[in-house]
Amino acid sequence: MKIKKIEIGENLFGKNDEIARENSELLQKYNILSLNLMGSPGSGKTSILELTIRKLKEKNITCGVIEGDIAGTFDSERISLLEVPVVQINTGGACHLEAMMIKKGMEQLTLNEIKVLFVENVGNLVCPAEFKLGIKYNVTVASITEGEEKPLKYPLMYSVSQLVLLNKIDLLKAIDFDTEKFYQYARKTNPDIKIIPVSGKTGDSINQFVDFIEEQLLIQ
Amino acid sequence: MKIKKIEIGENLFGKNDEIARENSELLQKYNILSLNLMGSPGSGKTSILELTIRKLKEKNITCGVIEGDIAGTFDSERISLLEVPVVQINTGGACHLEAMMIKKGMEQLTLNEIKVLFVENVGNLVCPAEFKLGIKYNVTVASITEGEEKPLKYPLMYSVSQLVLLNKIDLLKAIDFDTEKFYQYARKTNPDIKIIPVSGKTGDSINQFVDFIEEQLLIQ
Repeated sequence: MKIKKIEIGENLFGKNDEIARENSELLQKYNILSLNLMGSPGSGKTSILELTIRKLKEKNITCGVIEGDIAGTFDSERISLLEVPVVQINTGGACHLEAMMIKKGMEQLTLNEIKVLFVENVGNLVCPAEFKLGIKYNVTVASITEGEEKPLKYPLMYSVSQLVLLNKIDLLKAIDFDTEKFYQYARKTNPDIKIIPVSGKTGDSINQFVDFIEEQLLIQ
Repeated sequence: MKIKKIEIGENLFGKNDEIARENSELLQKYNILSLNLMGSPGSGKTSILELTIRKLKEKNITCGVIEGDIAGTFDSERISLLEVPVVQINTGGACHLEAMMIKKGMEQLTLNEIKVLFVENVGNLVCPAEFKLGIKYNVTVASITEGEEKPLKYPLMYSVSQLVLLNKIDLLKAIDFDTEKFYQYARKTNPDIKIIPVSGKTGDSINQFVDFIEEQLLIQ
């Protein structure tokens, strides 16, 4: 599917929270469930998206994707192979997505054909957490290769997220990672956070994320 | 060794490049070689530092460390076990170190006792690249678990670095990583960049990084 692309200039910034509210209202109007995937570079956001979208398509749940990257179209090219509408946002250096970029992204999508909107934020465990986008669920994708202490070192990301996908569990045997401590640290930062261990490589437990999405679709 | 700690308030920012120049002059005055380690959360900056400092100590090359983190003292606690002077800078939310933080950090160190100053920046593949610190060498620590395309997705980091430590090569068998492509992409972004593959777990090829440091000590 053809990739739509937006280059964001400096002048689009400002009034972020107001625009985030408008985005949220627009998504509610179209009854779209929205999820904002955040995490370090290489934590596996795109791989998880690919697997999840494939499974949602099998269930006839239509998806749309807004891909945020500083430069390039690597991720949107991968997603577009799944034949879902995808908008690439190149921030031109900025380390995070802002509400205006999501607004511009949604303008490129046919909203009444979408049930689930995924936003893949710029790979960064810090800055994306600071900007409201008007997206309903913040999802942190954490890879076990990053170490178990990250929730304590990057507390804001974990505070603003409702869900953590703890990725690359296929590598648990090859890597020193204390799963119990990770859970403890994540919950110390955010007692209400839900954690789903997954593998974006083998597909392990991706169904649990798909189940989460289906549950949210029912109650929204 | 006791960890010195600085909390950075908002009012320290500004005039960054001027202060970076002053930092650089101070380091030259004391004939200190300085290296700024940057990279994603969990790329292995601290593990590499630990191994490198241990080897430099064996050669009677004295080190000092400035640890940058948003919150916590995890890394400085690890480094302090090596009995080297370490200053922890907590940025209080900021996603990068700035020149003033380095200046304040150096004030806490006995500079005439240090030959090599390491700065470990906040784990972030984006923002730290934007701020001059007055540190001579920028070193990107990249983990193979992040994927080979990262130099193209985060070009600024690779443009401002003279050296890449390609970490976690002990996992090459467990992970799909195209080393050749990584070299190609890194050099496309920065044709002069030097790349040393290492393992912060097994210690493989850390000697090459130590050799690099010793060479720079000779020519400076």
